[in-house]
Amino acid sequence: MQQFEDIQKQTVKALDKILGKPFKVLDDGFVRVIDYLGSDNAIVQAARVSYGKGTKKISADRELIRYLLRHRHTSPFEMCEIKLHVRVPMDCWRQWIRHRTANVNEYSTRYSIAIDAAQNTKPDEWRFQSKGNRQGSDGFLEEKTGKMLSNKEEKLHNLARDIYNERLELGVAREQARKDLPLATYTEAYWKMDLSNLFHFLELRMEKHSQKEIREYATIIGNKIVAKWCPMAWEAFQDYHMNSITFSKVELEILKNMATGKTKEATQVAEQNNWLLQKDGKLKKILERIEFEEKCQQMGIAIPWF
Amino acid sequence: MQQFEDIQKQTVKALDKILGKPFKVLDDGFVRVIDYLGSDNAIVQAARVSYGKGTKKISADRELIRYLLRHRHTSPFEMCEIKLHVRVPMDCWRQWIRHRTANVNEYSTRYSIAIDAAQNTKPDEWRFQSKGNRQGSDGFLEEKTGKMLSNKEEKLHNLARDIYNERLELGVAREQARKDLPLATYTEAYWKMDLSNLFHFLELRMEKHSQKEIREYATIIGNKIVAKWCPMAWEAFQDYHMNSITFSKVELEILKNMATGKTKEATQVAEQNNWLLQKDGKLKKILERIEFEEKCQQMGIAIPWF
Amino acid sequence: MQQFEDIQKQTVKALDKILGKPFKVLDDGFVRVIDYLGSDNAIVQAARVSYGKGTKKISADRELIRYLLRHRHTSPFEMCEIKLHVRVPMDCWRQWIRHRTANVNEYSTRYSIAIDAAQNTKPDEWRFQSKGNRQGSDGFLEEKTGKMLSNKEEKLHNLARDIYNERLELGVAREQARKDLPLATYTEAYWKMDLSNLFHFLELRMEKHSQKEIREYATIIGNKIVAKWCPMAWEAFQDYHMNSITFSKVELEILKNMATGKTKEATQVAEQNNWLLQKDGKLKKILERIEFEEKCQQMGIAIPWF
Amino acid sequence: MQQFEDIQKQTVKALDKILGKPFKVLDDGFVRVIDYLGSDNAIVQAARVSYGKGTKKISADRELIRYLLRHRHTSPFEMCEIKLHVRVPMDCWRQWIRHRTANVNEYSTRYSIAIDAAQNTKPDEWRFQSKGNRQGSDGFLEEKTGKMLSNKEEKLHNLARDIYNERLELGVAREQARKDLPLATYTEAYWKMDLSNLFHFLELRMEKHSQKEIREYATIIGNKIVAKWCPMAWEAFQDYHMNSITFSKVELEILKNMATGKTKEATQVAEQNNWLLQKDGKLKKILERIEFEEKCQQMGIAIPWF
Repeated sequence: MQQFEDIQKQTVKALDKILGKPFKVLDDGFVRVIDYLGSDNAIVQAARVSYGKGTKKISADRELIRYLLRHRHTSPFEMCEIKLHVRVPMDCWRQWIRHRTANVNEYSTRYSIAIDAAQNTKPDEWRFQSKGNRQGSDGFLEEKTGKMLSNKEEKLHNLARDIYNERLELGVAREQARKDLPLATYTEAYWKMDLSNLFHFLELRMEKHSQKEIREYATIIGNKIVAKWCPMAWEAFQDYHMNSITFSKVELEILKNMATGKTKEATQVAEQNNWLLQKDGKLKKILERIEFEEKCQQMGIAIPWF
Repeated sequence: MQQFEDIQKQTVKALDKILGKPFKVLDDGFVRVIDYLGSDNAIVQAARVSYGKGTKKISADRELIRYLLRHRHTSPFEMCEIKLHVRVPMDCWRQWIRHRTANVNEYSTRYSIAIDAAQNTKPDEWRFQSKGNRQGSDGFLEEKTGKMLSNKEEKLHNLARDIYNERLELGVAREQARKDLPLATYTEAYWKMDLSNLFHFLELRMEKHSQKEIREYATIIGNKIVAKWCPMAWEAFQDYHMNSITFSKVELEILKNMATGKTKEATQVAEQNNWLLQKDGKLKKILERIEFEEKCQQMGIAIPWF
Repeated sequence: MQQFEDIQKQTVKALDKILGKPFKVLDDGFVRVIDYLGSDNAIVQAARVSYGKGTKKISADRELIRYLLRHRHTSPFEMCEIKLHVRVPMDCWRQWIRHRTANVNEYSTRYSIAIDAAQNTKPDEWRFQSKGNRQGSDGFLEEKTGKMLSNKEEKLHNLARDIYNERLELGVAREQARKDLPLATYTEAYWKMDLSNLFHFLELRMEKHSQKEIREYATIIGNKIVAKWCPMAWEAFQDYHMNSITFSKVELEILKNMATGKTKEATQVAEQNNWLLQKDGKLKKILERIEFEEKCQQMGIAIPWF
Repeated sequence: MQQFEDIQKQTVKALDKILGKPFKVLDDGFVRVIDYLGSDNAIVQAARVSYGKGTKKISADRELIRYLLRHRHTSPFEMCEIKLHVRVPMDCWRQWIRHRTANVNEYSTRYSIAIDAAQNTKPDEWRFQSKGNRQGSDGFLEEKTGKMLSNKEEKLHNLARDIYNERLELGVAREQARKDLPLATYTEAYWKMDLSNLFHFLELRMEKHSQKEIREYATIIGNKIVAKWCPMAWEAFQDYHMNSITFSKVELEILKNMATGKTKEATQVAEQNNWLLQKDGKLKKILERIEFEEKCQQMGIAIPWF
């Protein structure tokens, strides 16, 4: 117990050191910790209330935290709360705000003049539409084209701002003047959330299919903040969520055959589920099969039908 | 009971008639009902479960609904659910989405090309910044200035769209190309909510201090949809929420004196609470007093200190 | 600002003094503060993010807090969070847990042996069923009867516990053995909530129609804890919620007539709304009228029709 | 499309047939469908709003539903809503109500006399405390002991009810008289939830570690109701949730070795993670290893270290 409390003190110190300190994100955004309640020890403490005297047998605290996370006993993780101050382009904020379990106070452009900054895209940052994933991007445009696009963006930002300012000068209400600001305009907010819901946010937004902009924020929050705030819970989250893989009923059948050396039978299961249909001599684009192939690659094992 | 069921049939018919029919809002927005679950009778039914056999004494259904709403027994109202399809400028949607209790599916501009429409402001629709209320607007700019502003707006919309289209043609990912669209760009969503939370939404958004754009949507939802869907609950909501007034501790003391003919004493209470401080021979701008004066006006009674 | 920070330091000190200290409730229950995040200053801080530079004009912090609460700008109050440890009879906990916005870890009687305590009713504590209010109680049974009831209660508690213990000794699973414990058995929980939702809880549960048992817990939480934790917000909550009165459309019409000396007209409004129907020479029991009469009494003004 | 609509019609018919029909659970409980909004087609419809014109390529509806569920795009599943009427012992309801996303109206024992029924345990239904799992049960007591326990239970139920009735007859308030009813007393409620949250409820409560009583309710809701209401979503839920397995980072490493025939290396990974520590010549009880062994058994593959 003593040892655990010592760890906790180090933890709190680690987080206290960065309290209020802004982590830069994108060209002009940031994330900073305003305040927090609880940390690893609050998770243990809450679980112990549930378990009463029964907990003595669940020996170590780290084991307890790992057990809780592994078995999705989420309520003890709700006992930790963190409050962040973030500065984010509205475009990105539109995705962020979809997480409904947070407490939010956003900068009001009805009340105050809109923040005079919009996210600029550098010439080498323009991303191609992904061919495989309708919602994604893939690789970068060549810099010459990028330069042209960045130039035009800058002019658009300036024009939109000039028009905004002109409206204000003519007396137009702020709530209406703002209507044509670009989505890339920065906003700020206080954003407060418990650790259980934050993990859910991070799992969705640190994921590779998440849009790059929000992924950068999520990655900072995870790696720079939560890792310091609740190191044991963070480690467990990595092991059981971020680096875990879930296999469906069909995938398990295939995997079972692979684990018992029956490559042929593995392929048969895939065939029976219409995963290996061909068109023009090539495998058809069947999402479930492709996703399984990606899992094989991730694990470093050979795909049975190749 | 028979009578009530007959009313319900009429109600359902009234709502079924408008199912799927879009009500136009703003220049290019709309609201339409996709589906619903329950209506006035579901409120009564749920309350009756709570009350068990005890309800026989609460005679009429209308009385029961009114009683529940008056006493903030909100849970029976949660038993009604409605699903709307809305088309709204993103600027307005940013306010809308702050209501966290809804289920939402929004049009994805990562997945599909952004809707090619932005809310246009007509020359006579540009509103002045309110002097009294930092978050509000008040009156309209003269049409000559408005014309100029509308012209510039149109050009900005066109330019932003051209740039968006150029990006797409050059292969930029949709998720990135969209970043400089104006906030006024329309989006669409399915939006599902229970009646209790919808009342909360309407109370905040039909209110006069709410921004005009979202107020127009809320007003349509209230008057054209909820009024048809749950007419008894809607009537009670009008009587006990929309047209009610809440008086604070101090205001009640003043009111008590007014109701017993003691105008002088009423003024004294105001004085004791520093409501009547003067500056340069005029009453200072003290919000609580001003709000009370507005309530008096709303009720049609004289302000004691004038 | 300095002054405000000084107040905050005092506040925090006031709450820190009672951190962990159990406040006794009922015969064997308690409430104690485990931890908290933010206080009055966090409300102000969050509101200032919303208002940006615009806030300079809203002079004092107390005024800002009062303004926010009066106008139901609830989000800044969500920026304060408190974690309590409570010990409550399960019967009372059944009402408590209906507040869905809390984070909860309850003592598990699947995992551990049930707490060996049930709430005992003293001979002078047995309450009569209210005649006027189907959900309420009113006055006390005479002590002789009370003594008999308390005796029988004690025997029932003992028998239920003996049976519980016998089951455990015979090896019955805890999750099943507990099934016949009396509802009055105590449970414990960590219960975490933001201030905005806590105010909602307190408004409903400190109210006179709330059941006495949960009312006692709510009253302790309000008067002994929140009053120390966020004194400015607590004061505003008293003035604008607990001690305020809301008048419906019809009540406002009556009140308007009373405030302008038109007692006769006030009575006429009541008549037009069927509030004054008679039966056997007495006013019928019409809830809306009775509630208005109670409001008059609360304000200390005469009822127009008496 | 036509085909899909035909399927939908069949679906709706399948559910409409059981509308209002109680499914018996435990000795005196039930679940019945009161009403619902949407079904498989509402999920597709909502997803199509998100995807706009882009959806044409995601060919079949079934594929779309499976894709959404597999990738945890939960919001379209929130577009379906179901309202159940349930009768449940309070002991079981205490677990049920922990799911906070539902709308609930429970039978009020403040308002009405408590339902005169408590869940009776038959002589062959008394379960042993599990040795391996502190929160579980395992096997049954012999019937002779069970008979004795059931007898005592019946007497306790009768006594508790007699005392309850005596209190009521003496005029004690219902809200207080109920305080010593056994936890096994039945309650009833209307319970309304969207499909996404219902899946979460079912995943937790149909699981084998869930308590038998609530598991019986969940199983009925899943197999008898959701399977008829949203058959495609239900099928996907089975394949991707109920019958899926998630492997942690360490488990994946072991599995990779097994799938490539490296049994020795698989064991080494387990050793490096302290999974194979011994005590008195036997493997120590290390939860993570035991859970992995269970997964192997479930998949039908040999455990590498046995």
